[in-house]
Amino acid sequence: MEFTHLQGLIAAPFTPMHADGSIHLELIPDYYALLKANGVTGAFICGSTGEGVSLTLQEKKAVAEAWAACSKNDPAFSVMPLLGGTCIADAKELAKHAQEIGLDAVSFTAPSYFKPANVQMLAACCKEIAAVVPDMPFYYYHIPVLTGVGFPMYDLLQAIDGLIPNFAGVKYTHEDFMDFLSCLHFKNGKYDMVWGRDENMLPALAIGTKASIGSTYNYAAPLYHQLMEAFEAGDLLKAQALQQQSIDMIRLLGKYGGIATGKAYMKLIGLDCGGFRLPVKNMDAVAFEQFKQEVANLSFDSYCSKKPAVAR
Amino acid sequence: MEFTHLQGLIAAPFTPMHADGSIHLELIPDYYALLKANGVTGAFICGSTGEGVSLTLQEKKAVAEAWAACSKNDPAFSVMPLLGGTCIADAKELAKHAQEIGLDAVSFTAPSYFKPANVQMLAACCKEIAAVVPDMPFYYYHIPVLTGVGFPMYDLLQAIDGLIPNFAGVKYTHEDFMDFLSCLHFKNGKYDMVWGRDENMLPALAIGTKASIGSTYNYAAPLYHQLMEAFEAGDLLKAQALQQQSIDMIRLLGKYGGIATGKAYMKLIGLDCGGFRLPVKNMDAVAFEQFKQEVANLSFDSYCSKKPAVAR
Amino acid sequence: MEFTHLQGLIAAPFTPMHADGSIHLELIPDYYALLKANGVTGAFICGSTGEGVSLTLQEKKAVAEAWAACSKNDPAFSVMPLLGGTCIADAKELAKHAQEIGLDAVSFTAPSYFKPANVQMLAACCKEIAAVVPDMPFYYYHIPVLTGVGFPMYDLLQAIDGLIPNFAGVKYTHEDFMDFLSCLHFKNGKYDMVWGRDENMLPALAIGTKASIGSTYNYAAPLYHQLMEAFEAGDLLKAQALQQQSIDMIRLLGKYGGIATGKAYMKLIGLDCGGFRLPVKNMDAVAFEQFKQEVANLSFDSYCSKKPAVAR
Amino acid sequence: MEFTHLQGLIAAPFTPMHADGSIHLELIPDYYALLKANGVTGAFICGSTGEGVSLTLQEKKAVAEAWAACSKNDPAFSVMPLLGGTCIADAKELAKHAQEIGLDAVSFTAPSYFKPANVQMLAACCKEIAAVVPDMPFYYYHIPVLTGVGFPMYDLLQAIDGLIPNFAGVKYTHEDFMDFLSCLHFKNGKYDMVWGRDENMLPALAIGTKASIGSTYNYAAPLYHQLMEAFEAGDLLKAQALQQQSIDMIRLLGKYGGIATGKAYMKLIGLDCGGFRLPVKNMDAVAFEQFKQEVANLSFDSYCSKKPAVAR
Repeated sequence: MEFTHLQGLIAAPFTPMHADGSIHLELIPDYYALLKANGVTGAFICGSTGEGVSLTLQEKKAVAEAWAACSKNDPAFSVMPLLGGTCIADAKELAKHAQEIGLDAVSFTAPSYFKPANVQMLAACCKEIAAVVPDMPFYYYHIPVLTGVGFPMYDLLQAIDGLIPNFAGVKYTHEDFMDFLSCLHFKNGKYDMVWGRDENMLPALAIGTKASIGSTYNYAAPLYHQLMEAFEAGDLLKAQALQQQSIDMIRLLGKYGGIATGKAYMKLIGLDCGGFRLPVKNMDAVAFEQFKQEVANLSFDSYCSKKPAVAR
Repeated sequence: MEFTHLQGLIAAPFTPMHADGSIHLELIPDYYALLKANGVTGAFICGSTGEGVSLTLQEKKAVAEAWAACSKNDPAFSVMPLLGGTCIADAKELAKHAQEIGLDAVSFTAPSYFKPANVQMLAACCKEIAAVVPDMPFYYYHIPVLTGVGFPMYDLLQAIDGLIPNFAGVKYTHEDFMDFLSCLHFKNGKYDMVWGRDENMLPALAIGTKASIGSTYNYAAPLYHQLMEAFEAGDLLKAQALQQQSIDMIRLLGKYGGIATGKAYMKLIGLDCGGFRLPVKNMDAVAFEQFKQEVANLSFDSYCSKKPAVAR
Repeated sequence: MEFTHLQGLIAAPFTPMHADGSIHLELIPDYYALLKANGVTGAFICGSTGEGVSLTLQEKKAVAEAWAACSKNDPAFSVMPLLGGTCIADAKELAKHAQEIGLDAVSFTAPSYFKPANVQMLAACCKEIAAVVPDMPFYYYHIPVLTGVGFPMYDLLQAIDGLIPNFAGVKYTHEDFMDFLSCLHFKNGKYDMVWGRDENMLPALAIGTKASIGSTYNYAAPLYHQLMEAFEAGDLLKAQALQQQSIDMIRLLGKYGGIATGKAYMKLIGLDCGGFRLPVKNMDAVAFEQFKQEVANLSFDSYCSKKPAVAR
Repeated sequence: MEFTHLQGLIAAPFTPMHADGSIHLELIPDYYALLKANGVTGAFICGSTGEGVSLTLQEKKAVAEAWAACSKNDPAFSVMPLLGGTCIADAKELAKHAQEIGLDAVSFTAPSYFKPANVQMLAACCKEIAAVVPDMPFYYYHIPVLTGVGFPMYDLLQAIDGLIPNFAGVKYTHEDFMDFLSCLHFKNGKYDMVWGRDENMLPALAIGTKASIGSTYNYAAPLYHQLMEAFEAGDLLKAQALQQQSIDMIRLLGKYGGIATGKAYMKLIGLDCGGFRLPVKNMDAVAFEQFKQEVANLSFDSYCSKKPAVAR
């Protein structure tokens, strides 16, 4: 089966929350408008950034429906939910739901509690789920730092090729460029290899990446558009400087406690998505003030995503 | 809050499945009768052995209800479900359900996708769930080899003591005897420390363990009763030989592909619980025949659990 | 080849250093006298505690010669050097030297930079070195936490049995009691299994350990003698309390920065062995005062090793 | 102190061995001639590829002297020995020796048995050794996959800057492009960042790498020269294809057992460097024939290094 390859910047949206931890569904149209206004071409929802693992099945469906409502008449914007990983039965139910509400593709990551013993068992999991939605593109989400499952994707492609007709490609959130390039070249680029490490976009472009999925495209899409333009124009020094700018932003995630820092960036651009659920730690007010100061020193304003001038 | 400490052998039951992978609920009364007939004092359900992570929320509830129906009038048999770990909201719903159907305690393991940044965040997760069922004993399930979360439990007890009134103790599936002994001695044995490594029961008895939860107590309870008796009688040589017998059985799990081997042992004692769900690999027919032969060489018949003579 | 099995407590001595980091060889007779006065039956020199990896070849020879000079007429005291691990050629030279100066046994640990690909390659390393001293007992030193090489020793025994006539056993510094018990029972106890985790001596005694090598036997031998006596007398509660006392001492190693804390304990009993070499961090004066206070709260004086009343 | 930055391809030579495992020093002039004939600009000797950890101190000196004899009148060829890592005293002695025989720079990697507790302790190790040769450029060799020491180099640069005047840079054998780019930009490129992952040269060029050290430059330098030329010319498709060619070669290392495969490649180009020492496994004759066939399928002949036409 041939699917259109993804292109450009795809955001992995945060799941908006109210102060009490319930989901703030009403914010999703604003979120969609923000992404559109900043040239983002799609949304990878309920993934790591979207806290899929911390949501109930019903909540994941509700989030998916809210995004579907925004994008259903927008062929230039793809929405793909992460179906989960550990519970195959839930993943199948969510796949069917994604199809029913008209999403564009589905994605699945490795079971991380019981880890597959080999790449064939991982392929068997993919096959069982993909078979439920045979007409939808199915993406494997490779993120060994969180799942602890680190098979080379080149091995997975070999295990899957010919086995799963609707297998479309891999969201690749790992640093193995040797593996990634081999996958890009697998059967003349048959599969869609989507880069998932925002801090390494430039080296990934050099080896042929055409699409990227990441969390910082939520709030700093203009920076990466400039980076891609500089790269296309052959201005590597400029591209390197922009990548350094991206790294300086991302380094603050490490300093301020990890993934929840992303929602702090969202506050700064004016789309308050609330906090992360447990077990993730959120910044307290004091840390947020210090964070804000550091971000100001990074000239974040010049590079950050801008909300559309007119409210929807 | 003071709870009665657990005693003796507690099984971590397999979740019985039909050939098509659906849950075989009707087998649970036979399962309960088997455990009772072999001196087992409780069941830790929907844990690792019980494939909790591979079950849907509704399936977990159905399994819990089936066990509750068996044990509700049996004060000598405790049933404790694992509520999960990664999704706190689901864990809270399952805790409430456990209380409604009359289970004896609840258990929770560490979020393993987003891992808690420190022991205080882990304690915060426990607190949020335990608060939903303030009158039920709440156990933390420590199994770093699967969750990747390896804080010393001595640190968790210090973080939790005074914070969670219904915290009852730890199911400890790890080999850190220094940590375990320190927990046993914490505030003069305030918390219930339940040993979770069947292959190391003897060294655990020597440092003061009173209760154990494990998967091999499903099918080899008599072996461990003999081991405990030998230990109590001061006959260490005999206890060591019995522990070696246990190890020889457990080594076959490594040889035949892991956790699914346990269900193969169940077939041998006559309680066919079906296979494991994906991503776990089940033995094929050829491997099962070879396995059966190896088990015969271990004199498994002398030590295995026996089904009650009269059908229920 | 049949060798006498080791018995009782064997210390892993610190290598005494002057303030300038050079080796304080003259202290070794006092060190030997201390160990003898406290019922220690041998010394495992230039191991982890002895900083073998931080010593030059000539320094290792000098340390070995100093211990040989003390113990040469003492059949009740065994001295065994660690020959190293990474450079096989050096290990062979040190083995020959150990034989020439009359040491009792030799030991070798896994290459930790290039790690052996499988247990057969590790056995091949052992064989090449053991062949140089065919009449000396050869021990493998298993310490995966430092070498990163974690093959089960049960597998190594199977690979080595029949291959290396002078293979005597394993110094086992790891927590895998299942593996350890299997090795103890291998061919009816053919090989000498020496326990290397002081904080877990009691559970190791319960499964049949007869000899232990450790760093805390340098400065707290009386504690462990009492522990072994309580165990022999069947007084497990007392043995558990003494093991807890040992753990409370060992926990300070974690708190005060690791292995160098051992030399701080040596200062407290009056045998100043100086500091550790780089890259190990030594306690500064402020930390040492705080450490001293904490140790006083542990009633260390009641359990510590005592220097002989009369100077040699 | 300002040193000239390294440029182009620097080989990490294998240490040539006779069939009996002794060092084949007489081959080193041929080796030097081979590298020169293929445009290689330097040699990083006694590193991982050079089996430094498996050589005695005297052997390392002998190897260094043989390379010094070749290159002493060649200002266009830099020779830098790895001094080791674990034993600081040995590293200091080798540093002095390197200076005496006129080598160009020295290098040191992290202690891997006792690992430094933090980046400050690692900086202290570097400082102690660098101080012995204050006029020589000192490089840190970052290879976490072998040492297990994975501090970000950006942190090391901050700890070292101002502390070690002759610190020159880092040989970076790791995949953290975010860290690497940050180091390249540290104080406007003050330090020399040398790329050490041959399979990822193209992405590293894109972020600004000017020099690379690797093992495959021993036998396939022309391939990488073509890759660098294609990159300079802006022909990314060609550069990607050449990088894929490099990956296909490197993948055989994984398939045929690792680092010793490199010496098999050397046999194919006509410079037989013998085998690796224990614990590394060498290919047997059957595997070598199969390997040869696979290499032939890769058109290795078109890309491999060529021996100079006239014997020296």
